This record gives sequence, C-alpha cells and structure tokens, in this order.
Amino acid sequence: MQNYSSRLLEEAVNEFSRLPGIGRRSALRLALHLLRQDESRSDALGNAILRLRGNIRYCNRCHNISDEELCSLCADPKRDNTILCVVEDIRDVMAIENTSQFRGVYHVLGGIISPMDGIGPNDLNIESLIVRTETEDIQEIIMAMPATTEGDTTNYYLYKKLKGKVPAISAISRGVAIGDELEFADEITLGKSILNRIPYEKLSD
Amino acid sequence: MQNYSSRLLEEAVNEFSRLPGIGRRSALRLALHLLRQDESRSDALGNAILRLRGNIRYCNRCHNISDEELCSLCADPKRDNTILCVVEDIRDVMAIENTSQFRGVYHVLGGIISPMDGIGPNDLNIESLIVRTETEDIQEIIMAMPATTEGDTTNYYLYKKLKGKVPAISAISRGVAIGDELEFADEITLGKSILNRIPYEKLSD
Repeated sequence: MQNYSSRLLEEAVNEFSRLPGIGRRSALRLALHLLRQDESRSDALGNAILRLRGNIRYCNRCHNISDEELCSLCADPKRDNTILCVVEDIRDVMAIENTSQFRGVYHVLGGIISPMDGIGPNDLNIESLIVRTETEDIQEIIMAMPATTEGDTTNYYLYKKLKGKVPAISAISRGVAIGDELEFADEITLGKSILNRIPYEKLSD
Repeated sequence: MQNYSSRLLEEAVNEFSRLPGIGRRSALRLALHLLRQDESRSDALGNAILRLRGNIRYCNRCHNISDEELCSLCADPKRDNTILCVVEDIRDVMAIENTSQFRGVYHVLGGIISPMDGIGPNDLNIESLIVRTETEDIQEIIMAMPATTEGDTTNYYLYKKLKGKVPAISAISRGVAIGDELEFADEITLGKSILNRIPYEKLSD
C-alpha cells in the first residue's frame, strides 16, 4: 500500500491504473507528468475524455464511430455501396482504409463470437447486417475477420446467416505475409497458404 | 495519417498520445476501451485529471505533493524533524517510505542537476533547503540521489552548498544489491562497493 501524500494524486493514479496495460507505477508516472506540464495540457486531456464518452455516436448504418448520424464513410458519395466489408471493430476499418485498396462500405460487428469471453451472436451487430442485405443493393459481402479460431467461428456463422441473401460472400485471404521468407512463416500459416492456393492468373499484384 | 471518422475520438487519441510512453496505437486502444466502459468510468478519469492539475498543492516546507499547506509527513508529530532526506522527486519519497527504514522528514528538489536537459541548480528547490538549514534544527542531511552522473553532480553541488550549515551530511550507500551474486553485479558497481567498503562492525542488518 503506497502513501501518496495527496488524495487528488491517489485518485488520478487509481483512475489511470484502471486503463488496460497501465499498472500503478505507470499511472503514477502519467499523473506526475501531467503535474509538470502546463495546466492547459491536462485540461485538454480531461475534457477530451469527458467529451468523448459523453458525446460520441455510432453510425446508424454501419455502427462505425461517428460524430453524425451517418459516418463519413457511409456519407461519402464516392464509396461503392454494393460492396460491404464486415469487420470486428473500428480499428479494422482504419487498418483497411490505410491500405487504400477498398472503396466499398463497412459493417462493424462491435466484437467477434467468442464463447470463452461469453460473447455470442446476439451481442454483435449481426441482425442489422441481415436487415442491410434486405434493404440495400449489396452485391458482395467481404468478411474481414482475424485469422483466429474466433474469426473462423464468426466467418462460419455469418456465412450461414448470409448465404442466399447476397450474390457473393468472400473472406480475406490468409497466408505468408508479403515480404516474408517461407522459412520464417509459421507452419500452420504456410500449410494453409498451400491448401488455399490461388490460380496464378487470378493472383493480383 | 489516420482517418478516425470522429473528431471526438481523434481529439481523445491526440491527447492520450501526448502522455509519455503512449503512442498513437495505444492511445486509440485506451479511447476505445473507455467507449466500451460505463460512462461513469470515463467521467471519473476525466474529472480526476481535471481536479489533479487544478487543485494540487505542494507542501510549503518540503515541496512534497500535498492537499494541505503541510504534507502528511511534515505534519506528523512522530517524525524526527532533525534528520532530513533530500530526494529528486515525490516517487523517491514513496520508495523510501515503503522501506519503513526512515523516520525523518524530506526535502523534494523537484528534479536533478542535468546540464544535458538544461536543468541547473536554480530550477530546483535548493534555496528553500538552505533556508531550512537556517531556520530548523537539522542534525543530519541525507542525500538520496540516483546513482547516476547527474546524481553525483547534484550530490557534489549540494555538499558544497550545505557544508558547515549542518553537523552531518551523508549520502545513501551504493553497491551490490541485496540478494545479488557478485558475478552478476556490473563491474562498476562492484568496483565502487570495494572502494566504499564499510567497517564490518558498522554494517547494519
């Protein structure tokens, strides 16, 4: 039990250390850092946190985080609304946007099916995805789940739910990472990349 | 450049990532974590940060962080006011308090002399330390600086300033850590521990 000599400091350390990956020692370092900074800096942080949770909204259509009813991606007339990419959370939207390889729209599940963590299909934005297949003109759904057991389970569940509702359902490819030597790829990935090989003429650069 | 789809989220990520040791990726993880939590949790964090910087005070006597004019250590009648331990910052006060080996009082310099970082004696609470030697009945000053070049420089500067003003000036001992085998101690530490050897009868458990 530490003696913080200040209730205010102790409170700040307690709250910081509730954040994931921040222990009490790091929390103290952060609090002392704020005390050394100009007051405007910690005001900015404190207020940004209060505004974030108090005012944040989610896109009515794709559940992406948004400041408006429709997120900037759904509202963009240049996006192709017939191709829909299903992802686990908003970080995946950002990762895919950073590739500049996808011009369609998204659907954010808000998680992934994980019985170990007690997360089932009903905890995710799957019902609204089904509704979208019925109300929008979607030609293809790309499932961009992580390459994990939970990702596979979610892919399988989504495929069963979506089959017949849209002309095409695909999943992102998995295999040896670009730039990697085969000898450094783990054997499961390498094995899968052989099983799921792609006709050379279909291979895109 | 990331597209955060929400200005509120981007602001929170910007502010988190200004903290030491938190990059943009961790900052995003923290912000998304807060969004998944109950609103009361992020309110508690935001308000703790605002209150910390807005209301924190420093002990009038020892510069320890405090909610009152005198910190809980200076105000404690059971502490020995004749032995004063000089430390770099409040974390060192906590570390020494955790040992339960010191019953005197402290003086927090608020930093350490470091020409590389542009920190000189005038940036530290040294003048008020001199004043304490003149107004309080101090029998011994223990300098508890880190075992670094900056710590050595600060020790030397303090010693020159304090010499003759108090009956005794000491520095905490440096050497092989308790429980360590000699073969694993670095050679500089081991060398110093031989040069600074202590008469066996003076060695305390």
